[in-house]
Amino acid sequence: MYKLILLRHGQSAWNLENRFTGWTDVDLSDKGRDEAREAGKKMKEAGLVPQYFFTSYLKRAIHTLQIAAEEMDLDWVPVVKDWHLNERHYGALQGLNKADTAQKYGAEQVHEWRRGFETLPPLLTPDDPRWPGNDVRYKSLTADELPLAESLKDTIARVRGCWEEVIAPKIPFYDTVLVAAHGNSLRGLAKMLLHMSANEVVDLEIPTGSPWVFELDERMNVIKEYYL
Amino acid sequence: MYKLILLRHGQSAWNLENRFTGWTDVDLSDKGRDEAREAGKKMKEAGLVPQYFFTSYLKRAIHTLQIAAEEMDLDWVPVVKDWHLNERHYGALQGLNKADTAQKYGAEQVHEWRRGFETLPPLLTPDDPRWPGNDVRYKSLTADELPLAESLKDTIARVRGCWEEVIAPKIPFYDTVLVAAHGNSLRGLAKMLLHMSANEVVDLEIPTGSPWVFELDERMNVIKEYYL
Repeated sequence: MYKLILLRHGQSAWNLENRFTGWTDVDLSDKGRDEAREAGKKMKEAGLVPQYFFTSYLKRAIHTLQIAAEEMDLDWVPVVKDWHLNERHYGALQGLNKADTAQKYGAEQVHEWRRGFETLPPLLTPDDPRWPGNDVRYKSLTADELPLAESLKDTIARVRGCWEEVIAPKIPFYDTVLVAAHGNSLRGLAKMLLHMSANEVVDLEIPTGSPWVFELDERMNVIKEYYL
Repeated sequence: MYKLILLRHGQSAWNLENRFTGWTDVDLSDKGRDEAREAGKKMKEAGLVPQYFFTSYLKRAIHTLQIAAEEMDLDWVPVVKDWHLNERHYGALQGLNKADTAQKYGAEQVHEWRRGFETLPPLLTPDDPRWPGNDVRYKSLTADELPLAESLKDTIARVRGCWEEVIAPKIPFYDTVLVAAHGNSLRGLAKMLLHMSANEVVDLEIPTGSPWVFELDERMNVIKEYYL
């Protein structure tokens, strides 16, 4: 039996400022760092010893992983950083204050952008500095991989590829693995693992800093899942 | 033209206590963390943007890398952790106070253990908790890879394998790479790159926290080298 642990990063500077973040590379707040430390302690107390780590290209997830790993004395464990585990790309909403945006476009529109499964937020244009094509870290992505904005469905589609090609193949060799990532990319993993519908996944709220343990059989079926 | 940057970790808790460290997984001191931060700043100011990181299995090197990367806003850069980049294994000396050891065995013997090229320190026995075969992180190593102690020559031999098979093949694809490691494993890299003799390498002192830049041609010959 294998164990897959999902860990959503804690509070970031922009959570505090109530801004749409997406792929903006905002760091953890002090509270977010504390949440990561607590998560590491919980895993250690539960006797979990992940042997492989996965995270995104964004420092709020990377630092969550590093802090939790340090707490578990597992700094040496191999880590794969994969942009497919990034947060949903919020397009032209990135950087905007959520309350201002609701005032400008109406609460209903903002709710639809945030909670629709296939709804795209307003698109970026490729000359926008927020477009990932203008960021050196995404230079190896193909044109169709570089989002102008993403629906939750788009995010889940790219997470699926990462699950099938990167994460799942490692699990039999490492028994226990940990994915430190974001609300929407972790929704994608949960949707696949728990066979959730689109309606179910938009309502799924994953708490920050709480290790979510999935016990899997040898065919990656979920036997049991629980939060620490 | 490519760039390879070698970075020796800064002060650790056991440097402060004047103990033989080797593969003991001692963390950086506050001063060591400051050295790492300074190293990151220097690389950033020099306009260096490493695209691939290599480090050891030991947290004083891993944390040096993480802190320097954070300073450069390069947290997302891929990192390979490889035990071949570990410090020299100091056998049964690990954990002992250097002054006490000199008093017990004589300063000349200790000098020989520390500065001989082929000299082995006293060997561990496999029932010793300090033997890496008793540490889960080294479980994938074969019997002949697990040291009871190492001479500098042994250390350099394993670093050579890592250079040829792991580091050098990445350089053409990433242009600038950074290796954050230890005094003796970095001596190994420097010996190969600069074609140093055994006598030269035992006298080579690599300063901590000072990025050492090697400019390489397409056949990995050193064109120029300098500290930042």
